[in-house]
Amino acid sequence: METLAYYNGKIGTLDEISIPVKDRSVYFGDGIYDATMSRNGKIVFLDEHIDRFFNSARLLEIELPYTKEELRVLLLDLVKKVDAEEMFVYWQASRGTAQRSHEYPKGVKANLLITIWPKKATRPNCDQKLMTAEDIRFQLCNIKTLNLIPSVMASQRAAEHGCDETVFHRGNIVTECAHSNVSILKDGVFITHPADNHILPGIARAHLIKNCKELGIPVEERLFTVEELYNADEIITSSSGKPACAAKELNGQPCGGKDGATLKRLFDAVIAEFAASVS
Amino acid sequence: METLAYYNGKIGTLDEISIPVKDRSVYFGDGIYDATMSRNGKIVFLDEHIDRFFNSARLLEIELPYTKEELRVLLLDLVKKVDAEEMFVYWQASRGTAQRSHEYPKGVKANLLITIWPKKATRPNCDQKLMTAEDIRFQLCNIKTLNLIPSVMASQRAAEHGCDETVFHRGNIVTECAHSNVSILKDGVFITHPADNHILPGIARAHLIKNCKELGIPVEERLFTVEELYNADEIITSSSGKPACAAKELNGQPCGGKDGATLKRLFDAVIAEFAASVS
Repeated sequence: METLAYYNGKIGTLDEISIPVKDRSVYFGDGIYDATMSRNGKIVFLDEHIDRFFNSARLLEIELPYTKEELRVLLLDLVKKVDAEEMFVYWQASRGTAQRSHEYPKGVKANLLITIWPKKATRPNCDQKLMTAEDIRFQLCNIKTLNLIPSVMASQRAAEHGCDETVFHRGNIVTECAHSNVSILKDGVFITHPADNHILPGIARAHLIKNCKELGIPVEERLFTVEELYNADEIITSSSGKPACAAKELNGQPCGGKDGATLKRLFDAVIAEFAASVS
Repeated sequence: METLAYYNGKIGTLDEISIPVKDRSVYFGDGIYDATMSRNGKIVFLDEHIDRFFNSARLLEIELPYTKEELRVLLLDLVKKVDAEEMFVYWQASRGTAQRSHEYPKGVKANLLITIWPKKATRPNCDQKLMTAEDIRFQLCNIKTLNLIPSVMASQRAAEHGCDETVFHRGNIVTECAHSNVSILKDGVFITHPADNHILPGIARAHLIKNCKELGIPVEERLFTVEELYNADEIITSSSGKPACAAKELNGQPCGGKDGATLKRLFDAVIAEFAASVS
Protein backbone atom coordinates (compact mmCIF):
# COMPACT_ATOMS: atom_id res chain seq x y z
CA MET A 1 0.00 0.00 0.00
CA GLU A 2 1.15 3.55 -0.65
CA THR A 3 -0.42 4.91 2.52
CA LEU A 4 -2.32 3.23 5.32
CA ALA A 5 -5.07 4.12 7.71
CA TYR A 6 -6.33 1.83 10.47
CA TYR A 7 -9.43 2.59 12.52
CA ASN A 8 -10.58 0.14 15.19
CA GLY A 9 -9.53 -2.84 13.08
CA LYS A 10 -10.56 -1.54 9.66
CA ILE A 11 -7.66 -1.02 7.22
CA GLY A 12 -7.45 0.97 3.98
CA THR A 13 -5.52 3.79 2.40
CA LEU A 14 -5.53 7.24 3.98
CA ASP A 15 -8.22 8.27 1.51
CA GLU A 16 -10.43 5.23 2.06
CA ILE A 17 -10.91 5.13 5.80
CA SER A 18 -13.44 7.35 7.54
CA ILE A 19 -14.53 7.77 11.12
CA PRO A 20 -17.90 8.39 12.78
CA VAL A 21 -18.98 12.00 13.32
CA LYS A 22 -19.61 10.99 16.93
CA ASP A 23 -15.91 10.22 17.55
CA ARG A 24 -14.95 12.71 20.27
CA SER A 25 -11.81 13.70 18.37
CA VAL A 26 -14.06 15.34 15.76
CA TYR A 27 -15.84 17.87 17.99
CA PHE A 28 -13.73 18.16 21.18
CA GLY A 29 -10.24 17.17 19.99
CA ASP A 30 -10.67 14.80 22.94
CA GLY A 31 -7.75 12.49 22.49
CA ILE A 32 -4.01 11.92 22.47
CA TYR A 33 -1.45 10.78 19.93
CA ASP A 34 2.13 9.89 19.31
CA ALA A 35 4.23 9.64 16.16
CA THR A 36 7.69 8.80 14.93
CA MET A 37 9.68 7.60 11.93
CA SER A 38 9.90 4.04 10.63
CA ARG A 39 12.64 2.45 8.56
CA ASN A 40 13.48 -1.12 7.57
CA GLY A 41 10.27 -2.40 9.10
CA LYS A 42 11.29 -1.00 12.50
CA ILE A 43 10.03 2.04 14.37
CA VAL A 44 12.37 4.59 15.90
CA PHE A 45 12.45 4.44 19.73
CA LEU A 46 9.13 2.61 19.61
CA ASP A 47 8.97 1.57 23.26
CA GLU A 48 9.60 5.14 24.41
CA HIS A 49 6.84 6.44 22.14
CA ILE A 50 4.42 3.80 23.38
CA ASP A 51 5.31 4.61 26.99
CA ARG A 52 4.64 8.30 26.35
CA PHE A 53 1.38 7.49 24.56
CA PHE A 54 0.14 5.48 27.53
CA ASN A 55 1.25 8.25 29.86
CA SER A 56 -0.66 10.85 27.79
CA ALA A 57 -3.73 8.61 28.01
CA ARG A 58 -3.33 8.29 31.78
CA LEU A 59 -3.03 12.07 32.21
CA LEU A 60 -6.08 12.67 30.01
CA GLU A 61 -7.95 9.87 31.84
CA ILE A 62 -8.51 7.83 28.68
CA GLU A 63 -8.53 4.11 29.30
CA LEU A 64 -6.82 2.24 26.48
CA PRO A 65 -8.39 -1.16 25.72
CA TYR A 66 -5.10 -2.82 24.73
CA THR A 67 -1.68 -3.44 26.24
CA LYS A 68 1.55 -1.73 25.25
CA GLU A 69 2.70 -5.02 23.74
CA GLU A 70 -0.48 -5.40 21.66
CA LEU A 71 -0.06 -1.86 20.31
CA ARG A 72 3.62 -2.52 19.58
CA VAL A 73 2.82 -5.67 17.61
CA LEU A 74 0.04 -3.92 15.70
CA LEU A 75 2.21 -0.92 14.71
CA LEU A 76 5.07 -3.17 13.57
CA ASP A 77 2.62 -5.26 11.57
CA LEU A 78 1.11 -2.21 9.86
CA VAL A 79 4.39 -0.56 8.81
CA LYS A 80 5.19 -3.75 6.89
CA LYS A 81 2.12 -3.17 4.71
CA VAL A 82 3.34 0.19 3.39
CA ASP A 83 5.64 0.16 0.37
CA ALA A 84 8.26 2.68 1.39
CA GLU A 85 11.74 2.60 2.84
CA GLU A 86 11.12 5.41 5.26
CA MET A 87 7.74 6.48 6.60
CA PHE A 88 5.98 8.42 9.29
CA VAL A 89 3.85 6.45 11.75
CA TYR A 90 1.13 8.31 13.64
CA TRP A 91 -1.38 6.87 16.09
CA GLN A 92 -4.10 8.49 18.17
CA ALA A 93 -6.70 7.48 20.71
CA SER A 94 -9.90 9.42 21.21
CA ARG A 95 -12.12 9.00 24.23
CA GLY A 96 -14.67 7.10 22.17
CA THR A 97 -17.81 7.49 20.10
CA ALA A 98 -20.79 9.12 21.77
CA GLN A 99 -23.44 11.80 21.53
CA ARG A 100 -21.80 15.18 22.12
CA SER A 101 -21.68 15.99 25.83
CA HIS A 102 -18.67 17.38 27.68
CA GLU A 103 -18.58 14.77 30.46
CA TYR A 104 -16.79 11.51 29.71
CA PRO A 105 -19.21 9.05 28.09
CA LYS A 106 -19.93 5.86 29.99
CA GLY A 107 -19.52 2.37 28.58
CA VAL A 108 -17.67 3.29 25.40
CA LYS A 109 -14.18 2.27 24.39
CA ALA A 110 -11.37 4.54 23.22
CA ASN A 111 -11.01 4.60 19.43
CA LEU A 112 -7.66 3.83 17.84
CA LEU A 113 -6.63 5.55 14.62
CA ILE A 114 -3.28 4.79 12.99
CA THR A 115 -2.00 6.51 9.86
CA ILE A 116 1.21 5.77 7.98
CA TRP A 117 2.67 7.54 4.96
CA PRO A 118 6.05 7.69 3.21
CA LYS A 119 8.36 10.37 4.53
CA LYS A 120 12.11 10.86 4.33
CA ALA A 121 13.94 11.41 7.59
CA THR A 122 15.41 14.88 7.89
CA ARG A 123 19.18 14.81 8.17
CA PRO A 124 20.82 16.96 10.85
CA ASN A 125 21.20 20.54 9.71
CA CYS A 126 22.39 23.81 11.15
CA ASP A 127 20.53 26.25 8.96
CA GLN A 128 17.13 26.60 10.60
CA LYS A 129 15.39 29.94 10.60
CA LEU A 130 13.35 30.59 13.72
CA MET A 131 10.95 33.24 14.86
CA THR A 132 9.51 33.87 18.32
CA ALA A 133 5.94 34.24 19.52
CA GLU A 134 4.14 34.47 22.83
CA ASP A 135 3.09 31.03 24.10
CA ILE A 136 -0.71 31.26 24.31
CA ARG A 137 -1.29 27.52 24.70
CA PHE A 138 -3.09 25.80 27.53
CA GLN A 139 -1.27 24.39 30.53
CA LEU A 140 -1.45 20.74 29.51
CA CYS A 141 1.51 20.91 27.11
CA ASN A 142 3.08 17.87 28.75
CA ILE A 143 0.25 15.77 27.28
CA LYS A 144 0.41 15.03 23.56
CA THR A 145 -3.20 15.97 22.84
CA LEU A 146 -5.21 16.65 19.69
CA ASN A 147 -5.85 20.27 20.80
CA LEU A 148 -3.27 21.84 18.52
CA ILE A 149 -4.70 25.09 17.17
CA PRO A 150 -2.05 27.40 18.66
CA SER A 151 0.71 25.23 17.15
CA VAL A 152 -1.13 25.15 13.82
CA MET A 153 -1.41 28.96 13.72
CA ALA A 154 2.19 29.49 14.83
CA SER A 155 3.42 27.06 12.16
CA GLN A 156 1.48 28.96 9.54
CA ARG A 157 3.01 32.27 10.70
CA ALA A 158 6.47 30.67 10.55
CA ALA A 159 5.86 29.42 7.01
CA GLU A 160 4.65 32.86 5.93
CA HIS A 161 7.85 34.39 7.32
CA GLY A 162 10.06 31.80 5.60
CA CYS A 163 10.91 30.24 8.96
CA ASP A 164 11.19 26.58 9.92
CA GLU A 165 9.80 26.87 13.43
CA THR A 166 8.32 29.24 16.00
CA VAL A 167 9.94 29.43 19.43
CA PHE A 168 7.30 30.05 22.09
CA HIS A 169 7.93 32.07 25.22
CA ARG A 170 5.64 32.63 28.21
CA GLY A 171 6.51 36.19 29.02
CA ASN A 172 10.30 36.17 29.05
CA ILE A 173 10.69 32.40 29.54
CA VAL A 174 11.37 30.25 26.48
CA THR A 175 9.25 27.08 26.56
CA GLU A 176 9.43 25.07 23.32
CA CYS A 177 8.57 25.36 19.64
CA ALA A 178 5.27 24.82 17.83
CA HIS A 179 6.19 21.19 17.11
CA SER A 180 9.71 20.73 18.51
CA ASN A 181 11.56 21.24 21.75
CA VAL A 182 14.19 23.96 21.89
CA SER A 183 17.44 23.89 23.86
CA ILE A 184 20.60 26.00 23.84
CA LEU A 185 24.33 25.51 24.21
CA LYS A 186 26.10 28.24 26.21
CA ASP A 187 29.71 28.04 27.40
CA GLY A 188 29.67 24.31 26.74
CA VAL A 189 26.50 23.69 28.79
CA PHE A 190 23.30 22.21 27.34
CA ILE A 191 20.32 24.17 28.74
CA THR A 192 16.70 23.12 28.26
CA HIS A 193 13.32 23.89 29.85
CA PRO A 194 12.38 21.46 32.64
CA ALA A 195 9.87 18.78 31.65
CA ASP A 196 6.85 20.35 33.36
CA ASN A 197 3.33 21.14 32.07
CA HIS A 198 4.65 23.87 29.74
CA ILE A 199 6.53 21.57 27.36
CA LEU A 200 6.18 18.16 25.79
CA PRO A 201 8.66 15.65 27.19
CA GLY A 202 10.26 15.16 23.79
CA ILE A 203 11.86 11.83 23.07
CA ALA A 204 14.48 13.44 20.82
CA ARG A 205 15.08 15.93 23.67
CA ALA A 206 15.55 13.03 26.12
CA HIS A 207 18.13 11.51 23.76
CA LEU A 208 19.95 14.83 23.45
CA ILE A 209 20.17 14.96 27.26
CA LYS A 210 21.28 11.32 27.50
CA ASN A 211 24.00 11.84 24.91
CA CYS A 212 25.17 15.07 26.53
CA LYS A 213 25.68 13.17 29.75
CA GLU A 214 27.55 10.38 27.99
CA LEU A 215 29.75 12.91 26.20
CA GLY A 216 30.51 14.88 29.36
CA ILE A 217 28.51 17.93 28.25
CA PRO A 218 26.90 19.42 31.39
CA VAL A 219 23.09 19.58 31.28
CA GLU A 220 20.92 22.15 33.02
CA GLU A 221 17.18 21.54 32.95
CA ARG A 222 16.08 25.01 33.99
CA LEU A 223 14.08 27.99 32.80
CA PHE A 224 15.94 30.22 30.36
CA THR A 225 15.00 33.58 28.91
CA VAL A 226 14.52 35.06 25.47
CA GLU A 227 17.76 37.01 26.04
CA GLU A 228 19.62 33.75 26.69
CA LEU A 229 18.15 32.39 23.46
CA TYR A 230 19.50 35.38 21.54
CA ASN A 231 22.89 35.08 23.23
CA ALA A 232 23.20 31.29 22.96
CA ASP A 233 26.26 29.74 21.35
CA GLU A 234 23.93 27.33 19.57
CA ILE A 235 20.13 27.01 19.40
CA ILE A 236 18.99 23.40 18.99
CA THR A 237 15.52 22.24 17.96
CA SER A 238 14.52 18.60 18.21
CA SER A 239 11.52 16.44 17.37
CA SER A 240 11.00 12.85 16.39
CA GLY A 241 10.81 13.87 12.73
CA LYS A 242 13.84 16.18 12.99
CA PRO A 243 15.87 15.03 15.99
CA ALA A 244 18.91 17.28 15.55
CA CYS A 245 18.71 20.73 14.02
CA ALA A 246 20.43 23.99 14.88
CA ALA A 247 19.43 27.53 13.97
CA LYS A 248 21.34 30.15 12.05
CA GLU A 249 18.68 32.86 12.14
CA LEU A 250 16.32 34.14 14.85
CA ASN A 251 13.74 36.78 13.97
CA GLY A 252 15.78 37.70 10.92
CA GLN A 253 19.06 38.11 12.83
CA PRO A 254 22.03 35.73 12.78
CA CYS A 255 22.12 33.45 15.84
CA GLY A 256 24.14 30.55 17.21
CA GLY A 257 26.99 29.20 15.13
CA LYS A 258 29.50 29.72 17.95
CA ASP A 259 30.06 26.15 19.18
CA GLY A 260 30.02 23.94 16.12
CA ALA A 261 32.43 21.48 17.72
CA THR A 262 30.15 20.60 20.64
CA LEU A 263 27.15 20.61 18.32
CA LYS A 264 28.79 18.13 15.95
CA ARG A 265 29.77 15.72 18.75
CA LEU A 266 26.24 15.82 20.11
CA PHE A 267 24.42 15.50 16.78
CA ASP A 268 26.70 12.67 15.60
CA ALA A 269 25.92 10.72 18.77
CA VAL A 270 22.18 11.33 18.59
CA ILE A 271 21.93 10.42 14.92
CA ALA A 272 23.95 7.27 15.47
CA GLU A 273 21.57 6.23 18.23
CA PHE A 274 18.58 7.12 16.06
CA ALA A 275 19.94 4.99 13.22
CA ALA A 276 20.82 2.10 15.53
CA SER A 277 17.23 1.88 16.73
CA VAL A 278 16.03 0.98 13.21
CA SER A 279 18.99 -1.00 11.88
CA MET B 1 -35.54 11.50 10.94
CA GLU B 2 -34.77 11.01 14.61
CA THR B 3 -31.33 12.60 14.37
CA LEU B 4 -29.49 14.19 11.49
CA ALA B 5 -25.91 14.59 10.36
CA TYR B 6 -24.83 16.58 7.32
CA TYR B 7 -21.29 16.53 5.96
CA ASN B 8 -20.42 18.55 2.86
CA GLY B 9 -23.80 17.81 1.29
CA LYS B 10 -24.23 14.21 2.44
CA ILE B 11 -27.17 13.63 4.81
CA GLY B 12 -27.95 10.73 7.14
CA THR B 13 -28.59 9.97 10.79
CA LEU B 14 -25.93 10.74 13.37
CA ASP B 15 -24.88 7.10 13.25
CA GLU B 16 -24.72 6.86 9.48
CA ILE B 17 -22.48 9.74 8.47
CA SER B 18 -18.72 9.51 8.70
CA ILE B 19 -15.88 11.85 7.86
CA PRO B 20 -12.43 11.35 6.32
CA VAL B 21 -9.52 10.65 8.68
CA LYS B 22 -7.74 13.49 6.85
CA ASP B 23 -10.30 16.09 8.05
CA ARG B 24 -8.19 18.46 10.16
CA SER B 25 -10.75 18.39 12.97
CA VAL B 26 -9.75 14.77 13.60
CA TYR B 27 -6.05 15.28 14.41
CA PHE B 28 -5.64 19.00 15.19
CA GLY B 29 -9.11 20.01 16.39
CA ASP B 30 -8.54 22.62 13.70
CA GLY B 31 -11.95 24.15 13.38
CA ILE B 32 -14.74 26.21 14.86
CA TYR B 33 -18.39 25.63 15.69
CA ASP B 34 -21.58 27.15 16.93
CA ALA B 35 -24.76 25.68 18.39
CA THR B 36 -28.17 26.61 19.70
CA MET B 37 -31.71 25.36 20.25
CA SER B 38 -34.41 24.96 17.64
CA ARG B 39 -38.18 24.93 18.12
CA ASN B 40 -41.14 25.12 15.74
CA GLY B 41 -38.85 24.90 12.72
CA LYS B 42 -37.05 28.05 13.83
CA ILE B 43 -33.60 28.46 15.38
CA VAL B 44 -33.01 30.58 18.48
CA PHE B 45 -31.13 33.82 17.72
CA LEU B 46 -29.95 32.26 14.47
CA ASP B 47 -28.47 35.37 12.89
CA GLU B 48 -26.40 36.10 15.99
CA HIS B 49 -25.07 32.54 16.03
CA ILE B 50 -24.19 32.72 12.35
CA ASP B 51 -22.47 36.07 12.86
CA ARG B 52 -20.40 34.59 15.69
CA PHE B 53 -19.60 31.50 13.61
CA PHE B 54 -18.28 33.64 10.79
CA ASN B 55 -16.33 35.73 13.28
CA SER B 56 -14.76 32.60 14.80
CA ALA B 57 -13.79 31.48 11.29
CA ARG B 58 -12.26 34.89 10.57
CA LEU B 59 -10.23 34.81 13.80
CA LEU B 60 -9.01 31.27 13.07
CA GLU B 61 -8.30 32.26 9.45
CA ILE B 62 -10.65 29.65 8.00
CA GLU B 63 -12.28 30.75 4.78
CA LEU B 64 -15.90 29.59 4.62
CA PRO B 65 -17.03 28.67 1.09
CA TYR B 66 -20.63 29.85 1.59
CA THR B 67 -22.45 33.01 2.61
CA LYS B 68 -24.21 33.63 5.90
CA GLU B 69 -27.51 33.50 4.04
CA GLU B 70 -26.68 30.15 2.42
CA LEU B 71 -25.81 28.70 5.81
CA ARG B 72 -29.00 30.13 7.32
CA VAL B 73 -31.16 28.57 4.63
CA LEU B 74 -29.39 25.22 4.97
CA LEU B 75 -29.76 25.07 8.77
CA LEU B 76 -33.45 25.99 8.60
CA ASP B 77 -33.98 23.37 5.92
CA LEU B 78 -32.24 20.65 7.97
CA VAL B 79 -34.11 21.25 11.24
CA LYS B 80 -37.35 20.59 9.35
CA LYS B 81 -36.15 17.06 8.59
CA VAL B 82 -35.89 16.06 12.26
CA ASP B 83 -39.02 14.77 13.98
CA ALA B 84 -38.90 16.61 17.28
CA GLU B 85 -40.49 19.68 18.77
CA GLU B 86 -37.31 20.92 20.36
CA MET B 87 -33.81 20.08 19.24
CA PHE B 88 -30.19 21.08 19.47
CA VAL B 89 -28.50 22.32 16.29
CA TYR B 90 -24.73 22.13 16.08
CA TRP B 91 -22.52 23.08 13.13
CA GLN B 92 -18.77 23.12 12.70
CA ALA B 93 -16.23 24.02 10.05
CA SER B 94 -12.80 22.44 9.90
CA ARG B 95 -9.96 23.86 7.86
CA GLY B 96 -10.35 21.09 5.30
CA THR B 97 -9.14 17.63 4.35
CA ALA B 98 -5.40 17.20 3.86
CA GLN B 99 -2.35 15.18 4.74
CA ARG B 100 -1.34 16.00 8.32
CA SER B 101 0.96 19.03 8.39
CA HIS B 102 0.66 21.94 10.80
CA GLU B 103 0.67 24.72 8.21
CA TYR B 104 -2.65 25.56 6.55
CA PRO B 105 -3.19 23.32 3.51
CA LYS B 106 -3.39 25.01 0.15
CA GLY B 107 -6.25 24.61 -2.29
CA VAL B 108 -8.67 22.79 0.00
CA LYS B 109 -12.08 23.97 1.14
CA ALA B 110 -13.35 24.12 4.71
CA ASN B 111 -15.54 21.14 5.61
CA LEU B 112 -19.03 21.71 7.01
CA LEU B 113 -20.49 19.29 9.55
CA ILE B 114 -23.99 19.82 10.95
CA THR B 115 -25.57 17.62 13.60
CA ILE B 116 -29.10 17.88 15.00
CA TRP B 117 -30.72 15.86 17.77
CA PRO B 118 -33.82 16.16 19.96
CA LYS B 119 -33.23 18.08 23.17
CA LYS B 120 -35.59 19.80 25.58
CA ALA B 121 -34.82 23.41 26.43
CA THR B 122 -33.79 23.90 30.04
CA ARG B 123 -36.21 26.14 31.92
CA PRO B 124 -34.75 28.91 34.09
CA ASN B 125 -33.72 27.59 37.47
CA CYS B 126 -32.03 28.88 40.56
CA ASP B 127 -30.63 25.69 42.01
CA GLN B 128 -27.33 25.20 40.25
CA LYS B 129 -24.40 23.75 42.11
CA LEU B 130 -21.06 25.17 41.06
CA MET B 131 -17.45 24.42 41.79
CA THR B 132 -14.35 26.45 40.98
CA ALA B 133 -11.14 25.50 39.19
CA GLU B 134 -8.07 27.25 37.87
CA ASP B 135 -8.53 28.31 34.24
CA ILE B 136 -5.76 26.43 32.41
CA ARG B 137 -7.15 27.03 28.91
CA PHE B 138 -5.36 28.72 26.03
CA GLN B 139 -5.76 32.40 25.29
CA LEU B 140 -8.10 32.03 22.32
CA CYS B 141 -11.23 31.57 24.43
CA ASN B 142 -13.04 34.25 22.43
CA ILE B 143 -13.04 31.87 19.46
CA LYS B 144 -15.50 28.98 19.58
CA THR B 145 -12.96 26.31 18.59
CA LEU B 146 -12.90 22.52 18.67
CA ASN B 147 -9.97 22.53 21.15
CA LEU B 148 -12.07 21.75 24.21
CA ILE B 149 -10.09 19.34 26.40
CA PRO B 150 -9.87 21.62 29.47
CA SER B 151 -13.65 22.16 29.35
CA VAL B 152 -14.21 18.43 28.92
CA MET B 153 -12.07 17.60 31.95
CA ALA B 154 -13.61 20.35 34.09
CA SER B 155 -17.11 19.15 33.17
CA GLN B 156 -16.18 15.64 34.19
CA ARG B 157 -14.84 16.90 37.55
CA ALA B 158 -18.09 18.86 38.05
CA ALA B 159 -20.19 15.78 37.31
CA GLU B 160 -18.13 13.69 39.75
CA HIS B 161 -18.74 16.33 42.44
CA GLY B 162 -22.48 16.46 41.73
CA CYS B 163 -22.11 19.95 40.30
CA ASP B 164 -23.72 21.49 37.21
CA GLU B 165 -20.80 23.63 36.14
CA THR B 166 -17.22 24.61 36.89
CA VAL B 167 -16.39 28.30 37.30
CA PHE B 168 -12.90 29.01 35.97
CA HIS B 169 -10.61 31.65 37.43
CA ARG B 170 -7.22 32.84 36.20
CA GLY B 171 -5.49 33.40 39.48
CA ASN B 172 -8.02 35.43 41.43
CA ILE B 173 -10.02 36.65 38.41
CA VAL B 174 -13.22 34.80 37.50
CA THR B 175 -13.43 34.24 33.73
CA GLU B 176 -16.31 31.96 32.72
CA CYS B 177 -17.52 28.38 33.16
CA ALA B 178 -16.56 25.22 31.29
CA HIS B 179 -19.47 25.68 28.88
CA SER B 180 -21.33 28.79 30.09
CA ASN B 181 -20.59 32.39 30.93
CA VAL B 182 -20.83 33.48 34.54
CA SER B 183 -22.02 36.84 35.85
CA ILE B 184 -23.01 38.17 39.25
CA LEU B 185 -25.56 40.53 40.72
CA LYS B 186 -24.26 42.71 43.56
CA ASP B 187 -26.14 45.63 45.09
CA GLY B 188 -28.44 45.66 42.08
CA VAL B 189 -25.56 45.79 39.55
CA PHE B 190 -24.97 43.12 36.89
CA ILE B 191 -21.22 42.39 36.73
CA THR B 192 -19.61 40.24 34.04
CA HIS B 193 -16.11 39.64 32.64
CA PRO B 194 -15.30 41.84 29.63
CA ALA B 195 -15.56 40.13 26.26
CA ASP B 196 -11.82 39.69 25.68
CA ASN B 197 -9.74 36.63 24.73
CA HIS B 198 -10.39 34.95 28.09
CA ILE B 199 -14.12 34.33 27.59
CA LEU B 200 -16.51 33.39 24.82
CA PRO B 201 -18.76 36.27 23.79
CA GLY B 202 -21.86 34.36 24.80
CA ILE B 203 -25.08 35.13 23.00
CA ALA B 204 -27.15 34.40 26.11
CA ARG B 205 -24.72 36.70 27.99
CA ALA B 206 -25.32 39.44 25.40
CA HIS B 207 -29.06 39.08 25.88
CA LEU B 208 -28.68 39.26 29.66
CA ILE B 209 -26.75 42.52 29.22
CA LYS B 210 -29.29 43.89 26.73
CA ASN B 211 -32.20 43.10 29.04
CA CYS B 212 -30.43 44.56 32.07
CA LYS B 213 -30.08 47.81 30.16
CA GLU B 214 -33.74 47.78 29.12
CA LEU B 215 -34.81 47.04 32.71
CA GLY B 216 -32.62 49.77 34.19
CA ILE B 217 -30.23 47.32 35.87
CA PRO B 218 -26.73 48.85 35.73
CA VAL B 219 -24.15 46.70 33.91
CA GLU B 220 -20.44 46.59 34.61
CA GLU B 221 -18.31 44.65 32.15
CA ARG B 222 -15.20 44.37 34.28
CA LEU B 223 -12.89 41.86 35.93
CA PHE B 224 -14.24 40.46 39.18
CA THR B 225 -12.61 38.22 41.75
CA VAL B 226 -13.31 34.86 43.35
CA GLU B 227 -14.13 36.76 46.57
CA GLU B 228 -16.74 38.80 44.70
CA LEU B 229 -18.18 35.55 43.36
CA TYR B 230 -18.53 34.18 46.91
CA ASN B 231 -20.06 37.44 48.12
CA ALA B 232 -22.41 37.97 45.16
CA ASP B 233 -26.12 38.50 45.76
CA GLU B 234 -26.78 36.17 42.84
CA ILE B 235 -24.49 34.06 40.62
CA ILE B 236 -25.85 33.68 37.09
CA THR B 237 -24.69 31.17 34.47
CA SER B 238 -25.81 31.43 30.88
CA SER B 239 -25.40 29.48 27.66
CA SER B 240 -27.47 28.96 24.56
CA GLY B 241 -28.73 25.65 25.94
CA LYS B 242 -29.39 27.10 29.41
CA PRO B 243 -29.78 30.86 29.00
CA ALA B 244 -30.85 31.75 32.53
CA CYS B 245 -29.68 29.82 35.58
CA ALA B 246 -28.66 30.92 39.05
CA ALA B 247 -26.60 29.09 41.63
CA LYS B 248 -27.49 28.08 45.15
CA GLU B 249 -24.24 26.33 46.01
CA LEU B 250 -20.57 27.13 45.36
CA ASN B 251 -17.91 24.60 46.36
CA GLY B 252 -20.39 23.00 48.73
CA GLN B 253 -21.36 26.27 50.47
CA PRO B 254 -24.64 28.18 50.03
CA CYS B 255 -24.28 31.13 47.65
CA GLY B 256 -26.44 33.80 46.05
CA GLY B 257 -30.15 33.80 46.81
CA LYS B 258 -30.08 37.39 48.04
CA ASP B 259 -31.68 39.28 45.15
CA GLY B 260 -34.45 37.07 43.81
CA ALA B 261 -36.53 40.08 42.74
CA THR B 262 -33.92 41.42 40.29
CA LEU B 263 -33.14 37.89 39.15
CA LYS B 264 -36.78 37.18 38.35
CA ARG B 265 -37.24 40.42 36.36
CA LEU B 266 -34.12 39.66 34.37
CA PHE B 267 -34.81 35.98 33.73
CA ASP B 268 -38.45 36.65 32.76
CA ALA B 269 -37.30 39.19 30.18
CA VAL B 270 -34.56 36.94 28.76
CA ILE B 271 -36.81 33.90 28.52
CA ALA B 272 -39.54 35.94 26.84
CA GLU B 273 -37.05 37.14 24.25
CA PHE B 274 -35.71 33.60 23.79
CA ALA B 275 -39.25 32.28 23.23
CA ALA B 276 -40.15 35.13 20.89
CA SER B 277 -37.25 34.27 18.61
CA VAL B 278 -38.78 30.84 17.85
CA SER B 279 -42.48 31.60 18.00
